Amino acid sequence: MGEAVGEIVHNKQIIFKGYIDGTPKETDMELKLGSTIKLEAPKGSSLILVKNLYLSCDPYMRGRMRNFHGSYIPPFVPGSVIEGLGVSKVLDSDDPNFKPGDIVSGLTGWEEYSLIHKNDHLRKVESDSIPLSYYTGLLGMPGFTAYAGFFEVCGPKKGDYVFVSAASGAVGQLVGQFAKLNGCYVVGSAGSGQKVDLLKNKLGFDDAFNYKEEADLDAVLKRVFPQGIDIYFDNVGGSMLEAVLLNMRIHGRIGVCGMVSQHSLSDPKGTRNLFHLVIKRVRMQGFLQRDYLHLYPKFLEDVSGLYKQGKITYLEDMDQGLENGPSAFVGLFSGKNVGKKVICVAHE
Amino acid sequence: MGEAVGEIVHNKQIIFKGYIDGTPKETDMELKLGSTIKLEAPKGSSLILVKNLYLSCDPYMRGRMRNFHGSYIPPFVPGSVIEGLGVSKVLDSDDPNFKPGDIVSGLTGWEEYSLIHKNDHLRKVESDSIPLSYYTGLLGMPGFTAYAGFFEVCGPKKGDYVFVSAASGAVGQLVGQFAKLNGCYVVGSAGSGQKVDLLKNKLGFDDAFNYKEEADLDAVLKRVFPQGIDIYFDNVGGSMLEAVLLNMRIHGRIGVCGMVSQHSLSDPKGTRNLFHLVIKRVRMQGFLQRDYLHLYPKFLEDVSGLYKQGKITYLEDMDQGLENGPSAFVGLFSGKNVGKKVICVAHE
Repeated sequence: MGEAVGEIVHNKQIIFKGYIDGTPKETDMELKLGSTIKLEAPKGSSLILVKNLYLSCDPYMRGRMRNFHGSYIPPFVPGSVIEGLGVSKVLDSDDPNFKPGDIVSGLTGWEEYSLIHKNDHLRKVESDSIPLSYYTGLLGMPGFTAYAGFFEVCGPKKGDYVFVSAASGAVGQLVGQFAKLNGCYVVGSAGSGQKVDLLKNKLGFDDAFNYKEEADLDAVLKRVFPQGIDIYFDNVGGSMLEAVLLNMRIHGRIGVCGMVSQHSLSDPKGTRNLFHLVIKRVRMQGFLQRDYLHLYPKFLEDVSGLYKQGKITYLEDMDQGLENGPSAFVGLFSGKNVGKKVICVAHE
Repeated sequence: MGEAVGEIVHNKQIIFKGYIDGTPKETDMELKLGSTIKLEAPKGSSLILVKNLYLSCDPYMRGRMRNFHGSYIPPFVPGSVIEGLGVSKVLDSDDPNFKPGDIVSGLTGWEEYSLIHKNDHLRKVESDSIPLSYYTGLLGMPGFTAYAGFFEVCGPKKGDYVFVSAASGAVGQLVGQFAKLNGCYVVGSAGSGQKVDLLKNKLGFDDAFNYKEEADLDAVLKRVFPQGIDIYFDNVGGSMLEAVLLNMRIHGRIGVCGMVSQHSLSDPKGTRNLFHLVIKRVRMQGFLQRDYLHLYPKFLEDVSGLYKQGKITYLEDMDQGLENGPSAFVGLFSGKNVGKKVICVAHE
């Protein structure tokens, strides 16, 4: 587009309005058209000025909409632009590690242009045959979450029976494919017939079911896993976790990645059947990809290699335009997205 | 007492009447006076005939009173004598590994004399300066549960903040002492002022509280662990576990030994706050001592050594007479016992 360094331009932004309870709504965010920004990284600031290309919609962002400071990441600031992961192009840089034209992935703002303060978390993206937007998914935080969570937390062995919830999502679709590549038997749950079809016919899952059509989750798990479950990669918590606990095998492992069904930290219902952890000697482990960052280079090499060889596929669900960010994000919590949800703000 | 091999004698027994729901009652068991037994291990049977000395009352036995076959040990048989761990003296043996006069510990019956079929699980007790009844506690299943659970499952490090529930019980009192011997800070919860006093003044816990006097378990945990909890050795489940989840430190570990508060497998209430497993990257692991039996010889050597050196103490709560078995067992579930509950059936 030929932005000139030093130019003052309009900068559309998505603003976080204030702390919420329950499921996010579009009205919790606001499109702000009136801002301007000088396309410059001030001398002596160590900052970089980027143009945002792709913004990532991730369920963990829901946690930042709550006024709770005991988590691993602080809450959003009401009235400020939403922060999220994205892929951006450097326009100006006062940091010697980055130069104009570099493509970077990491934390940025939900706006057209951002002055980035947290440069130390940014990764430079080497251009190759992989779509840039995939650095918010396959090769970004969700992909690495799947990789670290499945291999490091769940400890898979060949022949293990693996169950993945939210299995067509940004993380789940990769967990299932990693499991298949490692000789496991994999079943996924998802929330529509279209997603079930994708799991079985495009992503290579051995079986899949639509949890919204099953009145008795224990019964469906007994049907698809008559032998029981060795590994449960949990993205949803709640009643699915309760049913899984009844079907775990001895020495099974539950990797707790997320609990998208649990919108409130106080979780009024609670999870039953935990005593089955003892009966079956199950290890249930919460994890965050950030604890495994030493493995990121290996992940990048392994997974981009698998992708280039055609051994892994990745479903992406892209919306065009920053102004569609709120609806894209909100849709995550009703399962509207099919695959990894991304907003394209601008093409390179 | 000079029983003669081949003699036919009266054999008092405690009979399991039938499957139950909820908390056990004395009337779920029955003292049967009319049985007789021939004090003989029949030739060719490979059985051994023992005189029972000490019988162990353990919370896990509650699980055998339920008609549920998916657990690690089958249910009791209605109308049959109750099976449990104990210390017994061999009167006659058709198994070359045991001879009359041997003291054995392992599964036996709640009766005066038992013909034992499961010899392969029996351990011979070498007589030394340790009371024989301690082979149902300190040096038996509860002691080994504490040892394997704390060292193998909870992975303690020097300086860790350790919380133990049911801390004066057969298992908890040892977990706390193991933790202190390993340089941890240890707090226990128990259900009476007397128990709290014992924890602080006899068992060496750094602090202790009576959970029955605390309306807000989260608040009391924040008071005794302002820095949070690294290790929770869970004997109770329920609302204490919910409060602990709010107070775990990053990379904390929860060893789930039992959930004595959860009398019903269906657990209608459920456990809230599980999402804190993710926020704090906590590992929660159910375990059974039987998975660690390769460590039993080392445990026996370590713990009997510590005991003989006076570095470990053990609280035992003994009732005299088989007829008091049902009340002793039932008392476990209201916390009547102070320390390991044992029934003395006969002195050696």
